Amino acid sequence: MANVQSKQKVIEAASMLFFQKGFHGTTVRDIADKASVNVSLISYYFKGKQGLLEYAVTHYYEAYLHMIHQTLRKFENESSFEQLKQVIHSIIKYKQSHFQLTCFIQRELSLDSIFVREMAVTYLAKENYLLSRLLYNTLKINEEGYDVQFLLMQLKGMLITPYVLHNEWRHKIVGEIAHQYFIEKYVQMIHNWLELMVKRQKVLE
Amino acid sequence: MANVQSKQKVIEAASMLFFQKGFHGTTVRDIADKASVNVSLISYYFKGKQGLLEYAVTHYYEAYLHMIHQTLRKFENESSFEQLKQVIHSIIKYKQSHFQLTCFIQRELSLDSIFVREMAVTYLAKENYLLSRLLYNTLKINEEGYDVQFLLMQLKGMLITPYVLHNEWRHKIVGEIAHQYFIEKYVQMIHNWLELMVKRQKVLE
Repeated sequence: MANVQSKQKVIEAASMLFFQKGFHGTTVRDIADKASVNVSLISYYFKGKQGLLEYAVTHYYEAYLHMIHQTLRKFENESSFEQLKQVIHSIIKYKQSHFQLTCFIQRELSLDSIFVREMAVTYLAKENYLLSRLLYNTLKINEEGYDVQFLLMQLKGMLITPYVLHNEWRHKIVGEIAHQYFIEKYVQMIHNWLELMVKRQKVLE
Repeated sequence: MANVQSKQKVIEAASMLFFQKGFHGTTVRDIADKASVNVSLISYYFKGKQGLLEYAVTHYYEAYLHMIHQTLRKFENESSFEQLKQVIHSIIKYKQSHFQLTCFIQRELSLDSIFVREMAVTYLAKENYLLSRLLYNTLKINEEGYDVQFLLMQLKGMLITPYVLHNEWRHKIVGEIAHQYFIEKYVQMIHNWLELMVKRQKVLE
């Protein structure tokens, strides 16, 4: 088996196990068994379980931010409103296509570890910057002031809800229908919210 | 020290440690040290770490559902809309006053364990029933159909967001200002959303 292939297999096995059993509940042996590779290979590639976690999460966020930038470039001649709608669509599509890793990372981010702090400084700060700029431009509001922080929180909440409440909603939504249908319906819901916020803002002006 | 007092001290220490370091990252010794009790006391009271977790979570949800029922009784002569607004206020107040346990439980619920499934069947099903009934009555929509599930998901998402994104928002919101101020502002945001949904529903009719 080629190196790239087995490396990918290890990451996929780890994503699934971390998602199901948690990081602490998963051993390197579990991962090796699931990926059908030798335990020593995981040490060689990733320097153990922590290294594997860091590799997977870093790759997840690098590709995540790249995807947001690509969407912004593709729609750079559109309005902020349209750009934000497209970015929301891309984000849900990306999260859905990496469902297990998305759910797992969201859980890990609620811990208070050095790794989480590093992620927050490196990636989440960039995500916040991009989303808040789009939101502020769309609603034409100033970045200062308190209420806008709540709007950003509300938006970010909607972008993570399916990946936090996945156990509760599995049978109702995610399990029964195709991912694609879920993406379109869920994105439509966030777009509806955004449109109501834009209308409300116009009334307030 | 009286039994009730030391039992409470153990639960508070465990809540704090589970929140900060996760369930697997916390040992019974850590909890005993923080609570200034003997390790054997934790075995005696709770039959170990898993028992302590189950005790704390069960008590959290029993009191949570009790609080929702109390709010409903208090406002039983009001409209569904007013009842739902009051329930949202009570929920955020409750979650905020048990901040660490709320964050920790939300994280645990994203795992796929037997304990989580038991919690889902016992408590989350009741919470969903109460919230969806209020939401459907407020928006005067039928429980069947697909879109309403998304509205319920959106509402539930807003009720958990501060306790999932707490690391990101600590410095911006939770840390800087009083809990009370946060509660009022955040509840107002959900109420605003609800009012927009009610207005939208009237337009659609």
